Amino acid sequence: MAEKLLVSGSIAYDCIETPLDKADYILGGSASYASLASSYFAPTLISGIVGNDFKESDVKRLTARAIDISNIKFEQSKPTFFWRGKYHDNFNSRETLDVQVNVYEDYKPELNAEARSAKYVLLGNISPVVQTAVLDMIESPKFVIVDTMDLWINIERQALEAIVKRADLLILNDSEAKLFSGERNIICAGKKLMGFGAKSVIIKTGEYGAMLFHKDGFFVVPAFPIESLHDPTGAGDSFAGALAGYLAGCDDTSFEAIRKGMVVASATASMTVESFSCYKLEENGLDEINRRRDYIKKISCSD
Amino acid sequence: MAEKLLVSGSIAYDCIETPLDKADYILGGSASYASLASSYFAPTLISGIVGNDFKESDVKRLTARAIDISNIKFEQSKPTFFWRGKYHDNFNSRETLDVQVNVYEDYKPELNAEARSAKYVLLGNISPVVQTAVLDMIESPKFVIVDTMDLWINIERQALEAIVKRADLLILNDSEAKLFSGERNIICAGKKLMGFGAKSVIIKTGEYGAMLFHKDGFFVVPAFPIESLHDPTGAGDSFAGALAGYLAGCDDTSFEAIRKGMVVASATASMTVESFSCYKLEENGLDEINRRRDYIKKISCSD
Repeated sequence: MAEKLLVSGSIAYDCIETPLDKADYILGGSASYASLASSYFAPTLISGIVGNDFKESDVKRLTARAIDISNIKFEQSKPTFFWRGKYHDNFNSRETLDVQVNVYEDYKPELNAEARSAKYVLLGNISPVVQTAVLDMIESPKFVIVDTMDLWINIERQALEAIVKRADLLILNDSEAKLFSGERNIICAGKKLMGFGAKSVIIKTGEYGAMLFHKDGFFVVPAFPIESLHDPTGAGDSFAGALAGYLAGCDDTSFEAIRKGMVVASATASMTVESFSCYKLEENGLDEINRRRDYIKKISCSD
Repeated sequence: MAEKLLVSGSIAYDCIETPLDKADYILGGSASYASLASSYFAPTLISGIVGNDFKESDVKRLTARAIDISNIKFEQSKPTFFWRGKYHDNFNSRETLDVQVNVYEDYKPELNAEARSAKYVLLGNISPVVQTAVLDMIESPKFVIVDTMDLWINIERQALEAIVKRADLLILNDSEAKLFSGERNIICAGKKLMGFGAKSVIIKTGEYGAMLFHKDGFFVVPAFPIESLHDPTGAGDSFAGALAGYLAGCDDTSFEAIRKGMVVASATASMTVESFSCYKLEENGLDEINRRRDYIKKISCSD
């Protein structure tokens, strides 16, 4: 029986320039990417705040995926969180050209009764102070996923460490895992992060896939092989969203379920990077996710 | 029925300094690493040249693994090929401090009748001119593996391209694959290298494992997770050697056999990097290779 999933994090407008293309004011932010991904697997509630420039067409993109938007605060005094970034050197480096926090300045999350009763919670990448405020409102969480980024490791370490202790699963990428743990070997990093109090840890390794550290074992999923990288933005958020949605959708938090969820998440994330925003994912949907999931299984088992 | 495998390449003495330890005049070189690895799977003949400083104890290390050394030329006028290197920044970069080609200067490989009749040939990393001279002596090769490195891509590209056209399998690492193909996306690099004429291509991705590009499909093997990196030297040579040995040992060159061989190769290479030279591999042998092979299978299949 599917459980509902609460996804919190940022909802943003992004202006992105890549070596191939550019896009202005497209829907971005960790909660947008994650909830669009999770919506294929579980009833999803999104929590966040948007501003006076938020487009009706973007509201419709969320509701078209049956995402419950009643925990999005529509603030009329300021614009939506804004990020402008540029990918250089054939996607090998990313530069932030502008960030305007806007509505997320002094943001105090609020949740309705439906959201507070969620058993599955994805605390998408945002300040650990906001993540903590959200989690404090959840009545009896069954499985809490914390995603983060280098910024919070550097400037909000104490709050991050506190929320990680309450996590069933911590998700970060390889450079963040090395930064947070102080280890340079990725296996040592994962093991050390397990000691930080999260019950399990996933380290995302970009074009190579992701690794799971769990008390019941270790698991590696490859990335779905793509030739047409269009925009890497949001890949990690989509991965986390699809995984969280998968677990909520089958209401199973076992090692086996997380492994299967990682395959689905790898498939979903590969579609996110083949277009700006989540356009390709929204266009191709579950059939293409399942096709890629089956392909990933095929290319990773030797027998 | 096992076929014999001819392994050619360099036989060297290495002086290596790592952030953890140092070792002087230890047996190294692509053919040494590869033949010690392949010896666990197939009758192995090694081809190369050593000098007047080559130690009897190193001869014994090869013969103890039943490696046929009758195609090693023992040259008394000069010392063995010598390499001194240092790993910096917690193994993230390697610096060559000294190279003395010594006996490999003007080296003309010679093979006896036994070696010329080999069906399986691993042309370990060395100048493509030497690789070509070896392959030209093989009467009717069934499966030819070519390993290489950035140096030859940069200074011997024409000869390298010619030998690659004769290869059943080209093996290189991710940065070499990107350099050789001119592509920055690893999947695009693999596909472009397939167009260079090798029947299949393996791109090694270090701590992440390796990927196979083959007309019958794509395959990814993860690295065996290790916490105790001691010396990365020779990991790629061991990988190539174990894979070549596995294929010769079962006399099977199918896509399925290469996939299974890559799992064995990943297991073997993980032991090489846990000590200087191949000490750990020689100490623990096939039982530990098989244990790691089974573990890699377990961590890479989600069902």
